[in-house]
Amino acid sequence: MAPVDPEEAEEFLRLFYAEADEPGATAVKGSAGRTAPLEERLEEVRDEIERTGTYVHTSAELAFGARVAWRSSARCIGRLYWRSLHLRDRRHVVAPDEVAAECVGHLDDATRRGRIRSTITVFAPDTPTAPGPRVWNEQLIRYAGYRTGGRVLGDPRYVGFTDHARSLGWVPPSPMGRFDVLPLVVSGGGEWAEKGPQFYEVPPESALEVELTHPDHDWFAELGLRWHALPVISNMRLDIGGVSYPAAPFNGWYMATEIGARNLSDSERYDMLSEVAERMGLDTSTDRTMWRDRAAVELTLAVQHSFDQAGVSMADHHGESQRFLRHLEREESAGRTCPVDWSWIVPPISGGLTPVFHRYYDEPSESGPMFRMDPQQAARGQGCPM
Amino acid sequence: MAPVDPEEAEEFLRLFYAEADEPGATAVKGSAGRTAPLEERLEEVRDEIERTGTYVHTSAELAFGARVAWRSSARCIGRLYWRSLHLRDRRHVVAPDEVAAECVGHLDDATRRGRIRSTITVFAPDTPTAPGPRVWNEQLIRYAGYRTGGRVLGDPRYVGFTDHARSLGWVPPSPMGRFDVLPLVVSGGGEWAEKGPQFYEVPPESALEVELTHPDHDWFAELGLRWHALPVISNMRLDIGGVSYPAAPFNGWYMATEIGARNLSDSERYDMLSEVAERMGLDTSTDRTMWRDRAAVELTLAVQHSFDQAGVSMADHHGESQRFLRHLEREESAGRTCPVDWSWIVPPISGGLTPVFHRYYDEPSESGPMFRMDPQQAARGQGCPM
Ligand code: HEM
Ligand code: HEM
Repeated sequence: MAPVDPEEAEEFLRLFYAEADEPGATAVKGSAGRTAPLEERLEEVRDEIERTGTYVHTSAELAFGARVAWRSSARCIGRLYWRSLHLRDRRHVVAPDEVAAECVGHLDDATRRGRIRSTITVFAPDTPTAPGPRVWNEQLIRYAGYRTGGRVLGDPRYVGFTDHARSLGWVPPSPMGRFDVLPLVVSGGGEWAEKGPQFYEVPPESALEVELTHPDHDWFAELGLRWHALPVISNMRLDIGGVSYPAAPFNGWYMATEIGARNLSDSERYDMLSEVAERMGLDTSTDRTMWRDRAAVELTLAVQHSFDQAGVSMADHHGESQRFLRHLEREESAGRTCPVDWSWIVPPISGGLTPVFHRYYDEPSESGPMFRMDPQQAARGQGCPM
Repeated sequence: MAPVDPEEAEEFLRLFYAEADEPGATAVKGSAGRTAPLEERLEEVRDEIERTGTYVHTSAELAFGARVAWRSSARCIGRLYWRSLHLRDRRHVVAPDEVAAECVGHLDDATRRGRIRSTITVFAPDTPTAPGPRVWNEQLIRYAGYRTGGRVLGDPRYVGFTDHARSLGWVPPSPMGRFDVLPLVVSGGGEWAEKGPQFYEVPPESALEVELTHPDHDWFAELGLRWHALPVISNMRLDIGGVSYPAAPFNGWYMATEIGARNLSDSERYDMLSEVAERMGLDTSTDRTMWRDRAAVELTLAVQHSFDQAGVSMADHHGESQRFLRHLEREESAGRTCPVDWSWIVPPISGGLTPVFHRYYDEPSESGPMFRMDPQQAARGQGCPM
């Protein structure tokens, strides 16, 4: 990795100190706080970059940086609570076994039997002398996809990743099922960087799942659908003030539409709409009976109902849209812009019924602490071993 | 109005001649065609602009320009058939009485008892010596909104416009209803331009309407809902090659979601979701029963069903999304970009279930023949008499 740009470091530190001085600066409280006045800290960091090509964030800087990266995620509707992100600082961890163990630790810490806490685990950064570790999975918990004849058993999105895990020696459960949790695939950092990736099973007790039922339709349970409680994105890079953390898995909780109207409905995923519609007795011979629309709503309702019954945190798109507008107002009164990607914020069903649909937003910005999708890691998430 | 920019005229004429030379150039066929070779025509137009500050399109140029303006409408999902736009050339018309009569003629020509034809009526352009006429209505057929106590009877969007029509002398039907067709409000061009706007009733037989019923729920008819068959946008300006036509009402046919999931559902419009949900017996005490989602789907289904039964042309969002992707492919094979505004193309319900959701597009462009919303006309459409 190239040395850190001192200007990026300075820009970030100035932001950190400026916000730390605001009244009620909860995003920077509760951690070590500032250790030195701004000018001293800038001096120190400039020296450190000159000597080593990089610098080490204080834990307060790291927590603040991660929170601002969340606040800047233009595609995220859940940002109202950006200040509450819980940091697991694991910057000393580079060995693949330990990375995997800490990922499992993340699942346990964040799941809390359903009372989910927004959490990020930050592993060692890339430095001019050595890369940090990497998690290949798109999310820490995802389901395998197996090509069987012309069809796919499981999640078609992860057929490539599943093949790759098998090439590393992973053995799927027998018999294979539609909801087999994939192993973690991890490359170490530092001295481990030259070694190829290794796989690690996720212990079943760390991967909480919810079986799906429907409040009105008993037959729904017979579909045998389920989903994991915790969405932990694990292949985005966290960039803070010129320092880049390639492994920094983070989670919030799910919004019901993500599972009901996308993962289980998309024709390239579990593709359940026609089966649900048929069970509902709808006429699927023409689009004009709105059978897809009806089935997607019932699938989403089943997800919401089942998570609620199981006591697992979950947002609904109506409430979350309202909370998001509250977030926009707060950001505005704080004198900040709020970058928004309309096409990600508007939910995949009932878009026009949510208040987020009916307005324009600030453009996504390209500077400041940020989660970025690294193209190489995106490819690895699909099982492409580059 | 300022004189026409000769470069804009030239750019347009070059486009027209280039596309007229393409094999199967149906957008320019069936009308007078080219009257002279390009260089001659350019010469002629340059002279005309020098002498008069403007120039007169041939009817073939006008038809082509209007079709390309449709093709360039980044917010329109219905563009596959852009070549089929039917032109009513009324550029000689400036007197308000005649403008109103021709608007009614447009309704009759385009409605055809339900076999709707995409149609545009082009009135006199703005010129350096005189403005063209203007239609104040947003659409030729819309419903009045009356403030009664703290509530609105009819369409809340048109409360201001209704007040303005009444200030011009329009008398609402007695008793006032939820679906009273508004009068046309027209300002003349040329010698009439100094006179204020006048209102004209739309003859009931020219405003085809559909009463809404639901395929499964008999009670739906008791809601007493209806909608007009023809959507004719009448306050956008048509700009072609430097010439600007302030009155050029155009129509296609409706897509069911526009009525079911927006006009009848939006809380700032007819706001019917909770009434429909209650009739459906849904629990409206929490968002988590998805009552809004379910009610919006049933409203849209009722619209689709009723228009289909009445034999009135109507698109559904599933089919239309597929047609739109076909349009994109065709434009691409013709070597053209296709400007798209994602947030308008994706339908207000079931966005994620339509293929238009899952891709990126070319940016809207700002040059070439185009429909533009004139801020003054937008304000007038809300009844603001500027
Ligand atoms: C607390 C509850 C949260 C909710 C309800 C929520 C909701 C969402 C939703 C619905 C999406 C769109 C997902 C998709 O369509 O694939 C999203 C995207 C995103 N969220 Fe959140 N989120 C939450 C917490 C977080 C946290 C804690 C972070 C980071 C610290 C975060 C960062 C992001 C990012 C970076 C994306 C874009 C992902 C991508 O590009 O694929 N979110 N969020
Ligand atoms: C033939 C059937 C057609 C269909 C199904 C169709 C569909 C649509 C839809 C669904 C919208 C979005 C409306 C909204 O959300 O408010 C739209 C917008 C638009 N359409 Fe079409 N359309 C058709 C024909 C036409 C024609 C003939 C023209 C022009 C000659 C046209 C020009 C436009 C324009 C300019 C907009 C944007 C309006 C605005 O900015 O408010 N469309 N169309």
